[in-house]
Amino acid sequence: MQNSYEQKFRIRRLEITDKKKGFIELLQQLTVCDSVSDKEFEDRFREVDLLGDDHVIGVIEDEITGKIIATGCVFIEKKFIRNCGKVGHIEDVVVDSSARGKQLGKKVVEFLSEHARSVGCYKVILDCSVENAVFYEKCGFKQKDVQMALYFG
Amino acid sequence: MQNSYEQKFRIRRLEITDKKKGFIELLQQLTVCDSVSDKEFEDRFREVDLLGDDHVIGVIEDEITGKIIATGCVFIEKKFIRNCGKVGHIEDVVVDSSARGKQLGKKVVEFLSEHARSVGCYKVILDCSVENAVFYEKCGFKQKDVQMALYFG
Repeated sequence: MQNSYEQKFRIRRLEITDKKKGFIELLQQLTVCDSVSDKEFEDRFREVDLLGDDHVIGVIEDEITGKIIATGCVFIEKKFIRNCGKVGHIEDVVVDSSARGKQLGKKVVEFLSEHARSVGCYKVILDCSVENAVFYEKCGFKQKDVQMALYFG
Repeated sequence: MQNSYEQKFRIRRLEITDKKKGFIELLQQLTVCDSVSDKEFEDRFREVDLLGDDHVIGVIEDEITGKIIATGCVFIEKKFIRNCGKVGHIEDVVVDSSARGKQLGKKVVEFLSEHARSVGCYKVILDCSVENAVFYEKCGFKQKDVQMALYFG
């Protein structure tokens, strides 16, 4: 049972062919994300890919339907504080509405946190709504500061 | 008066010679930041410098003492959401304890926000303590989410 679950919901890095597998439609469940052209997708994919381990996008593909059903990303910030330390920033975590309750969100967050740890970050952080804080607490996170935002235009 | 103030507290990007001007000592007022060797500083400086406009560190030097008295940085995250939008993340804003009350923090935040806007970000965000939220509100920010953190080791 464990093995077939692991097989079915394997997590891997985003590939350039994942646009066809519903990656953008999945992100649309998270926030404003109009349709993205193939060229826009490929340009952005390559920009992020150039950053290598400093910007990793994880995805879970449903092996049966061939659809991307969960994703999240982490990018690595290089600091001078903490003895030239590094911090992982997790962003854009979403699980397909039809695939909730399978712990896929936790799997994504653990994959991203483990990546941050493996490249030497002293911590990994993220911003979320008050309602989602409980989920991240289950992933080992603790509430710390408040997020401030300034929108342009 | 305005001109001499502008002259005295000009903001510019971090330069590799700023370690000698107290840049690390300034960061030590913010958080844990043990002494950094010249080589560690230069290696990290070059890593960040390679990112060009995607990671900008601003500093204010007191033209009379030759000391760095305020700093902050912004790095640019490239997303797929918001039509392949970009977000500026502000980090590590600090003003020397002897130079508070001169609006230097605001000047740093405005410099970083303006940079994010100029490279096409749809928003700029940061995390701060509840006590510091009032300062960022004066800079035009609004409180939005909560920050969650997971520390390693």
